[in-house]
Amino acid sequence: MVRENEIRRNEVAVTPPAPTDAGLVYIGRIETPWTSKLLAPRQGRPDGPICRIEIFEPWTPALDGIERFERLEVLYWLHLSRRDLVRQSPANDGSTHGTFALRSPVRPNPIGTSIATLVAREGSTLLVRGLDCLDGTPLIDLKPDRSLFKPIAPEQPGDLETQA
Amino acid sequence: MVRENEIRRNEVAVTPPAPTDAGLVYIGRIETPWTSKLLAPRQGRPDGPICRIEIFEPWTPALDGIERFERLEVLYWLHLSRRDLVRQSPANDGSTHGTFALRSPVRPNPIGTSIATLVAREGSTLLVRGLDCLDGTPLIDLKPDRSLFKPIAPEQPGDLETQA
Repeated sequence: MVRENEIRRNEVAVTPPAPTDAGLVYIGRIETPWTSKLLAPRQGRPDGPICRIEIFEPWTPALDGIERFERLEVLYWLHLSRRDLVRQSPANDGSTHGTFALRSPVRPNPIGTSIATLVAREGSTLLVRGLDCLDGTPLIDLKPDRSLFKPIAPEQPGDLETQA
Repeated sequence: MVRENEIRRNEVAVTPPAPTDAGLVYIGRIETPWTSKLLAPRQGRPDGPICRIEIFEPWTPALDGIERFERLEVLYWLHLSRRDLVRQSPANDGSTHGTFALRSPVRPNPIGTSIATLVAREGSTLLVRGLDCLDGTPLIDLKPDRSLFKPIAPEQPGDLETQA
């Protein structure tokens, strides 16, 4: 069973600094079929259920041109996750792993990232597959999948820098 | 030339809501060779220069096990970027694109994501290639690359859900 909010055997919690270094604005809301942590998938799948991403004002003009991309990188705020565990036991068997060696929703900054397939756009709403988050999850960013995006800006000196 | 902080012809700025929906904590700091927006690459490259990711306390125990992953997903806060443009002109030629159809650093929540190759770990510092950000960029998350990570948590009902 996945975590509700408990701390498990051998897990390590810290007292985190106040999360005041930068502030986020929720730019939309994600609708999915999953209303409980006990039901949601561990990771999205490309043939998974269609989910809806609703974009809030004043951001809808920022969607212009998004239909050109078959896949989108979606960033969302895992608003129900604790943020204080540095070692976690996903199997709940006493063995633990560092948080940065996991893709668990429990992290200092609980940001989830998925690659979603864009099925359709309906005005300020996108229909996508491939998400894994709970219904009502706040959206924080949307970008074209990195493998589909070619920079439009002119070349920069750093583009050519390599190192043996 | 890339943007310093100007608004260009035909670009559209909005008055954004206050970014107070959620708060971030900087968990580390990224050292790169690029000290100016005019020099940094548009996107990282796998054979690019080695960069250093320093993890702050109390988060270093969260690195345990990260050496097992050849590639990491790195999330960072593009602290010098404006956040109010919904249409942008990367080529500065009067043509504009919606912000969510671009991977520009200028976005409502200026979070950059890269897939970096892990070269070595030295205590609380990781040496990686593949970044594109400025020297001094704040780190906000580190995860194994999604294609290398297999969930450890027991199977969930949602794992099996598909839809025609």
